Amino acid sequence: MSLRYGVAAACLLLNPGPGAAEPPDAKPPQWTERAPGVWEAVVGVPERLTLLGAAAQPPKADALRSLPAARFPFEPAEAVARLVAGKVSLRFPLADDEEIYGLGVDFKSLRRTGSALRLHVDHWGGVPGRTHAPVPFYVSSRGYGVLVDSARYVDFYVGSAVRLAASRKPPVVDRTTGGKAWSAQPRSDSVEALVPAPGVRVLVFGGPTALDAVRRYNLWSGGGALPPKWGLGFMTRTPTAYSAKDALAEVAEFRRRGIPLDMLGLEPGWHDHAYPCSFEWDKTRFPDPAGFLAELEQQHVRANLWFNPYVSPTAPLHAKLLPYAGSHLVWNGIVPDYSLAEARTIFADHLFKKVLSLQPTAVGGFKVDEVDGYDRWLWPDLAVFPSGHDAEQLRQSYGLLLQRLLFDLFRRANRRTLGQVRGTNGGASPFPFVIYNDNYAFDEYITAVANSSFAGVLWSPEVRSGDGEDMLRRVQAVSFSPLALFNGWATSTKLWTHAAVVDDIRSAILLRLRLLPYWYTSFAQYHFAGTPVVRAMPLVSGFEAQPARVSEVRDQYMVGDALLVAPIAPGAKSRKVALPEGSWFDFYTGRLVGDGRGEVEVTPPLSQIPLLVRDGGLVSLIGDRQWAPSRDEVLALEVRHYGLKPGATLLYDDDGETFDYERGERSWTRLEVGRDALGQWRGTLRPDPNGKGWRYGDVTWRFMTAPRSP
Amino acid sequence: MSLRYGVAAACLLLNPGPGAAEPPDAKPPQWTERAPGVWEAVVGVPERLTLLGAAAQPPKADALRSLPAARFPFEPAEAVARLVAGKVSLRFPLADDEEIYGLGVDFKSLRRTGSALRLHVDHWGGVPGRTHAPVPFYVSSRGYGVLVDSARYVDFYVGSAVRLAASRKPPVVDRTTGGKAWSAQPRSDSVEALVPAPGVRVLVFGGPTALDAVRRYNLWSGGGALPPKWGLGFMTRTPTAYSAKDALAEVAEFRRRGIPLDMLGLEPGWHDHAYPCSFEWDKTRFPDPAGFLAELEQQHVRANLWFNPYVSPTAPLHAKLLPYAGSHLVWNGIVPDYSLAEARTIFADHLFKKVLSLQPTAVGGFKVDEVDGYDRWLWPDLAVFPSGHDAEQLRQSYGLLLQRLLFDLFRRANRRTLGQVRGTNGGASPFPFVIYNDNYAFDEYITAVANSSFAGVLWSPEVRSGDGEDMLRRVQAVSFSPLALFNGWATSTKLWTHAAVVDDIRSAILLRLRLLPYWYTSFAQYHFAGTPVVRAMPLVSGFEAQPARVSEVRDQYMVGDALLVAPIAPGAKSRKVALPEGSWFDFYTGRLVGDGRGEVEVTPPLSQIPLLVRDGGLVSLIGDRQWAPSRDEVLALEVRHYGLKPGATLLYDDDGETFDYERGERSWTRLEVGRDALGQWRGTLRPDPNGKGWRYGDVTWRFMTAPRSP
Repeated sequence: MSLRYGVAAACLLLNPGPGAAEPPDAKPPQWTERAPGVWEAVVGVPERLTLLGAAAQPPKADALRSLPAARFPFEPAEAVARLVAGKVSLRFPLADDEEIYGLGVDFKSLRRTGSALRLHVDHWGGVPGRTHAPVPFYVSSRGYGVLVDSARYVDFYVGSAVRLAASRKPPVVDRTTGGKAWSAQPRSDSVEALVPAPGVRVLVFGGPTALDAVRRYNLWSGGGALPPKWGLGFMTRTPTAYSAKDALAEVAEFRRRGIPLDMLGLEPGWHDHAYPCSFEWDKTRFPDPAGFLAELEQQHVRANLWFNPYVSPTAPLHAKLLPYAGSHLVWNGIVPDYSLAEARTIFADHLFKKVLSLQPTAVGGFKVDEVDGYDRWLWPDLAVFPSGHDAEQLRQSYGLLLQRLLFDLFRRANRRTLGQVRGTNGGASPFPFVIYNDNYAFDEYITAVANSSFAGVLWSPEVRSGDGEDMLRRVQAVSFSPLALFNGWATSTKLWTHAAVVDDIRSAILLRLRLLPYWYTSFAQYHFAGTPVVRAMPLVSGFEAQPARVSEVRDQYMVGDALLVAPIAPGAKSRKVALPEGSWFDFYTGRLVGDGRGEVEVTPPLSQIPLLVRDGGLVSLIGDRQWAPSRDEVLALEVRHYGLKPGATLLYDDDGETFDYERGERSWTRLEVGRDALGQWRGTLRPDPNGKGWRYGDVTWRFMTAPRSP
Repeated sequence: MSLRYGVAAACLLLNPGPGAAEPPDAKPPQWTERAPGVWEAVVGVPERLTLLGAAAQPPKADALRSLPAARFPFEPAEAVARLVAGKVSLRFPLADDEEIYGLGVDFKSLRRTGSALRLHVDHWGGVPGRTHAPVPFYVSSRGYGVLVDSARYVDFYVGSAVRLAASRKPPVVDRTTGGKAWSAQPRSDSVEALVPAPGVRVLVFGGPTALDAVRRYNLWSGGGALPPKWGLGFMTRTPTAYSAKDALAEVAEFRRRGIPLDMLGLEPGWHDHAYPCSFEWDKTRFPDPAGFLAELEQQHVRANLWFNPYVSPTAPLHAKLLPYAGSHLVWNGIVPDYSLAEARTIFADHLFKKVLSLQPTAVGGFKVDEVDGYDRWLWPDLAVFPSGHDAEQLRQSYGLLLQRLLFDLFRRANRRTLGQVRGTNGGASPFPFVIYNDNYAFDEYITAVANSSFAGVLWSPEVRSGDGEDMLRRVQAVSFSPLALFNGWATSTKLWTHAAVVDDIRSAILLRLRLLPYWYTSFAQYHFAGTPVVRAMPLVSGFEAQPARVSEVRDQYMVGDALLVAPIAPGAKSRKVALPEGSWFDFYTGRLVGDGRGEVEVTPPLSQIPLLVRDGGLVSLIGDRQWAPSRDEVLALEVRHYGLKPGATLLYDDDGETFDYERGERSWTRLEVGRDALGQWRGTLRPDPNGKGWRYGDVTWRFMTAPRSP
């Protein structure tokens, strides 16, 4: 063996390679502007299955054109690509003062600089890069973004790998004597990525701001998701073995107690076989599915049906999908290759026939479980699939393929859906699916809500159990996340279990529904302009200039343009809030909380989650209600103005249920607050000249902040 | 984009692939018997750099021939290999009652069945497969082993991935109603592996026992490490900024307090620049290195010198190694490509000139730090190296290459070495290097000691700090691990800091030295016969038949043939010990502790680590001493006999310092205890007829167990 090795080593020396120099075949890729501020480079030969390809949603070209002009954000020569041994190596510049965010929904931090990540769809288990949404898109504090459109486990080295050939290198310090000048992790001048594929498309999204780059990414992916209005109400999930009767009794209990409810989640027990799934109603628990759905509709509640996509050999569907199955099973169920259009059609037709067609207006959506991990649960990376795509590619894109399939299914019925999905990836912005998981660490789940804004995804923490205060604080937090949900699938705890807090829980959920116009408009901004609904602080204007702590303010975020949400963890009596520039006002009282560029301490009562409003911010509300408005209701609107500055905003509306908005059935109404000739606040509503479908009647203006005392 | 994807999917359907069937190109590899009980198959075109190739140690052919005959352990048709897209996919059979161990030094469990692992040299951070020794070798409870000789990140799926085409499949159970019959992880009929390379050599090692398979693996790798005798004494590491004067004062303090000491570890401060390293003595702290080493030798202490292998630009060595450097730096130091013989020679020559040649008998070895991880510290997987080998291959083999380099360096001076290394891999059995890390969880570090026996490596936990009892229990545990070490590099705590336990600490270390003949013989068994020194319980004869708990008894292990070590965690007053078949006796008193096939509770005093001896077991000791014997000492020997059965063993000896044993300067002396005509125990020593270098004088026989009362 010694000899064998020796011979190999000797041969190598005849061709000693690059040594200390830059790899000679590394060269700048060619960038083509595909849309204003969106540049693409093709390196090598990209694979057939990519993330954007799996999502398959057309870019929102018009909206991209309406964004501010952007310049290519760095010297093109500073980015290089290299092909070696069937892989693509990429390098992008990183300035000394530059911060990188994104690369998927991490639960620990927003900041990526200094990390080495292998992006891999997985349950969150504390391994950086392994997450439900390992989106290979990053956002720079310098106001641009980069997407590596690969359905592979892509490695990213974000300022963590210093090159010998770099012109800017960190100082060399002796650790023994250097004290704090020595760094365990010298910072490099680059973001580098390794794509284990013979080629890849790379996209650069211009700014000028980081938020603009995120907007372009979302618009290029097809625009953000626009859920139905009822999707912005409240959801509960029933225990797994509940029958139709149990489920309807649960709905009645919500109504009896005056706790709003819009969506009812059925867990595995609706199938007659689950884990793996049959996709057939269980005849014992659900003897009359159509009747059950009709009763739900009577109660203004939509069903959401759980599944994992592994088909049981006991199911009629099994034989149809068997020709499209991969080589390995998951929980003894086949894994259909949903990169194949035929497999998607068979599955969608089955769901249509067995579920959606029974009562299209009563089926809200599906919960797509277990498409994320763990490795020991899902198909192995050596599995083979009939499409010829790699098991790794299917792992990275399976959640995307299922979202697309379901999105198309509901579109076919001209019904909007809101679903849940456990694993997703880049290109998912248009899909009305909210990621969830089992992580119950309060601080981590707030961080994930914030991080989702860099990734074109929606993420919602869960409420399951806990003592009274714990449950209340969690309900308050989920009520300010994309999906307000109580997940009772595996507990006998109910929202009303803790009598001492049930009124406050009800209030939190009522507030969620009162704010529906504000939430809906924020989602419309996401859909039409790519602006995320939830925004991590580094995306908030006026926050960039904050002191160093800025980049790691991960326990607060903005919802929409006006509201700063600062969830309070169970047990905490007060917390600090880091303010963007300007003055900020208490949502509940209108009082000044603080002036920006610093921190304030807030000490809310147990009944309130801290909410701050920008100076001049307008927040639109409707009255207390138990479910989201239907398309035919006309509602009274309350517009609140906060602070000392004038304010203006556009309020979006449409039927809230269908895709008719795509044909112009929508309106953007302008709300303005300014001072009249006497110096008094006055509100003005300016209808959308081209708009249709404005559903509000009376408007009440409330000026929340008392004038400054003279 | 929608169109583009649609076209791709349509094309694929023209060639729909294997669907539900077995991949058609999967076929059984061809096995060739390379040595008795060692079969090799070549799949595809193996890469030039492999693990066995990097270690480059010739198999111990004679010893392999002396093992019991072995049959190929499974039906050859049951193993299949497949090449796809530049990767090798492997499958081996797994019986329903079969347990798999190995696949590297894990800290949580011995059992591998049910796991999916990506083997990756790394710091231990709790991710299965990422460890200092991710050895791609597994051991079956059915008495065979399999090595996948690849320097790649190999994925293993151990009974975790059920195939659609499998003939034996687990039952399909509905989770909602199935209760405990439902399993979150149905067990497969296979061990599968994915090697991201175009080819690989696979080796199967026969039994008949699991221990025989491990022996064959170790012998094929070149036989186990045989450290010098002083390497079995005690080591301390000094604080990082200690000078020569400080270090010598520390040695004097050990001597003054009567605590044995054989090795003194110098940390980064011996370099004039460290992190990255200069490999030059610091002139301030070590103005006279040769004089310092001479003084150490006077004190019977060997120096062990820390380094990480990343060369500082401030170092004279830098210019010489620069032509062999990889594209990326680690802590600003170059990463020499030690797969190249020239780079190894330059580095070895430098260490010889600057360190070893100064006083060859006073330099014991080196501590090779930081060749393991984390990813954010080491070179990225996209780095390129002058040899043309991949960064991933270098990551997997770097520790091996450095051990080989240092082993060769000391061999050149005919001095044995004992070093430490932080990352290693398959094929390392012959290297006298002990792995270490920063993990300080007592239970995990005992598990790792046990697991190392499946991996052909030595692992030693650390003692650093803690209160009195904590430190004592840790000292006792490391005294029954391959390297007995106190690591004081970053603490002001000393072994004598806690006055209440210092006598017990001294006793534990004295016992370590008293047992030197036993330890040394156990290492000789490792070296010449491949039998691991430490043996996890599944490798212990008479243990296989234990009840189900057996496979996860991970808190005890055997050292050598006779001693069962059951470390007590700090704070515990008693513990359970699972006994292999037969009767077991207390090491200290000779009293019966229990009969096998069950558990006993032991409640030792604080001063003792529980040690049990097999019935008929012989344990050889020398007298109390402060350092290991030199080659010229003649020592009194005490042979203890335990239990009620006669016993026999071979005791190994040689000069303990050089490689002269390879030229026959060694002996295996037979020790026997049986009953004489009067029924009294009698000990007999039978010298090795061909042996040389027996260094013991008077022999005292002690029969520890009182005869059974009539």
